[in-house]
Amino acid sequence: MEQKEKTIALQKHAEWKGKLEVVVKAPIETREELSIAYTPGVAEPCLEIVKDESLAYRYTGKGNLVAVITDGTAVLGLGDIGPAAGMPVMEGKCALFKRFAGVNAVPICIDSKDPKVIIDTIVNISKSFGGINLEDISAPRCFEIEEALKERCDIPVFHDDQHGTAIITAAGVLNAVKLTGRKMGQLKIVVNGAGAAGISVARQFVRMGFGDVILCEKEGTVYPGAPYNNEAQEAAARITNKGGLRGTLADAMRDADVFIGVSRPGLVTKEMVRSMKKDPIVFAMANPTPEIMPELAKEAGAAVVGTGRSDYPNQVNNVLAFPGIFKGVLSVRASAITDAMKEAASRAIASVISEEELQPDYVLPDVFDPRVVDAVVDAVVKEAAASGADRR
Amino acid sequence: MEQKEKTIALQKHAEWKGKLEVVVKAPIETREELSIAYTPGVAEPCLEIVKDESLAYRYTGKGNLVAVITDGTAVLGLGDIGPAAGMPVMEGKCALFKRFAGVNAVPICIDSKDPKVIIDTIVNISKSFGGINLEDISAPRCFEIEEALKERCDIPVFHDDQHGTAIITAAGVLNAVKLTGRKMGQLKIVVNGAGAAGISVARQFVRMGFGDVILCEKEGTVYPGAPYNNEAQEAAARITNKGGLRGTLADAMRDADVFIGVSRPGLVTKEMVRSMKKDPIVFAMANPTPEIMPELAKEAGAAVVGTGRSDYPNQVNNVLAFPGIFKGVLSVRASAITDAMKEAASRAIASVISEEELQPDYVLPDVFDPRVVDAVVDAVVKEAAASGADRR
Repeated sequence: MEQKEKTIALQKHAEWKGKLEVVVKAPIETREELSIAYTPGVAEPCLEIVKDESLAYRYTGKGNLVAVITDGTAVLGLGDIGPAAGMPVMEGKCALFKRFAGVNAVPICIDSKDPKVIIDTIVNISKSFGGINLEDISAPRCFEIEEALKERCDIPVFHDDQHGTAIITAAGVLNAVKLTGRKMGQLKIVVNGAGAAGISVARQFVRMGFGDVILCEKEGTVYPGAPYNNEAQEAAARITNKGGLRGTLADAMRDADVFIGVSRPGLVTKEMVRSMKKDPIVFAMANPTPEIMPELAKEAGAAVVGTGRSDYPNQVNNVLAFPGIFKGVLSVRASAITDAMKEAASRAIASVISEEELQPDYVLPDVFDPRVVDAVVDAVVKEAAASGADRR
Repeated sequence: MEQKEKTIALQKHAEWKGKLEVVVKAPIETREELSIAYTPGVAEPCLEIVKDESLAYRYTGKGNLVAVITDGTAVLGLGDIGPAAGMPVMEGKCALFKRFAGVNAVPICIDSKDPKVIIDTIVNISKSFGGINLEDISAPRCFEIEEALKERCDIPVFHDDQHGTAIITAAGVLNAVKLTGRKMGQLKIVVNGAGAAGISVARQFVRMGFGDVILCEKEGTVYPGAPYNNEAQEAAARITNKGGLRGTLADAMRDADVFIGVSRPGLVTKEMVRSMKKDPIVFAMANPTPEIMPELAKEAGAAVVGTGRSDYPNQVNNVLAFPGIFKGVLSVRASAITDAMKEAASRAIASVISEEELQPDYVLPDVFDPRVVDAVVDAVVKEAAASGADRR
């Protein structure tokens, strides 16, 4: 980003003083209106909810309200900047929820890095919301936090840094595979970066039967018992890297069909892309600079290239998934966002682009394509109905 | 409230599905706008806040955002109905913050009754907000919770059930005393109900030098060492009831100038009002039915009568205080709402009614009087400047 644009971003934030505003839907201009929206009339919905807690979805905003929660430990590419400094991002995320799916969202930052404290705090306030979107929490803590919350909360909990990236990358790969005439189930996929996003990508690709996934870390490939594995990586090792490959990223990429980068700028060379199978698929999503720039990847023979950037084609932008996913589960009052829903969302995002439209520079829809959110909502709602997750 | 009105209240709440909505102030219609409100532009305000946390007031909504938090243990007159059922009231309170002072507010219910858990939870999320309004938390737990939060949070914490009632009742008494030609400092005041509101009323009256206050509980007057005192009542006993009166409410009311009821319907008889000094001042605020109905109190000689009801004159409605108080402290980024600010607010609310306007049925301004919030904001801001609480 140019200095000029940085200055504009700062000026705009100072002008907005917060990107969100709370507005009141209930008229309060007369005594009568006051006595309906507040005391004594407000006692009536309270008493109904005491009798049946599910009526909170009827009489309060719970059913269209998501909390966007961070501890500020892994904000954008900035790292551990703390809860207060993470707020502009959380407000932005809330703005996207509303802009793209009409879902109300409030940003909350937690002033603790202790997973136990974070979990307890979120559980304690969870009845206030219809869903919880975890954001920018560092790995491997994020896995433990999400797992515990899914267990203890009766509303959907979703760590977007993990699953959002996985859902959209899967959508992109689905279309790229179609375009390059590949066969699902036989792909060799290298995922570089075994943190929140990378592990979730690997899990979803394996679940969807894409083929064999090899996760790589700074130290090399992830395999069962690798000395540098953390707990989440060790678990991932058990479902990936079937051949037990030990080696570098370059070793792993040889003869691979797909490269997925959720790591650091510039790690991948043209040579490494050339060592992949013919017409390889490259999603290089390090921000702001990809693992390999699209121009270079294409020169090295890549058939489809995606990045995290808005100034190149095939942007993997989480906004394609989370607004529709939450709108979908909220609309059916689902208690969780299941793996099947995530997979359905991937297929829905991929399917927004018709066979005729599909081309190497268009395997993922534009973030402003209004068809995306509807397609994702529809897929999630159908999956909820099929699995009995619809609680209406 | 009539059955018909109750039905309307329920219908309206079902129609609204939440009285609040989040709207987005930042335009997000183009890639450029998206990259300013969200990544990569949003990194700029984050980095500024890392350097100086007070810049959260410049670059986020913190400076105009209050959390309205309950545990659902003392909601309206309904008692312990739990966190989910308390939400319609919290949403209503948030609506009043916006309607009367333009302050954004979000409702949060905490799913625990353990004061330690409630305190920790609120501390952990407090950096997300510019202020915290505690609501409908039962006594005596509310005292411990508010005290601990004031100690541990660096933003204003205010338990409205305590202080709101105290501030407005004090305003009403200030004007009623003027009207009945009494002398401040020599009043005998009986406060019936030694819970959250009653104890705060007693404390504020004593601080403001109204005279001697006698608190009464179900069992009788509160005096040092009374066997029925809880810890908060024992502390209150040390600054009230100078004569150490032991007896019933009727005993206490004999020769009293002022009766303040924050207790239960119908506890006060005409006889008891007749036993008070000439032209007594009666604020009977039990809801929905006062300790004595205004007609009866007047028949018994009361010079000024106030209630909590909107269908009688002199309504003690907390909305006269909390919107302006929070707007005031937020505007100067004060770290606390001090006793001096509360007293300044009482005087400001009283002063909205001019000497010429003042009459027995008009000692408190109407809740919709637009002069009130401005007067309260002005008083709080001035007090903050005088005491050095202005942190801008």
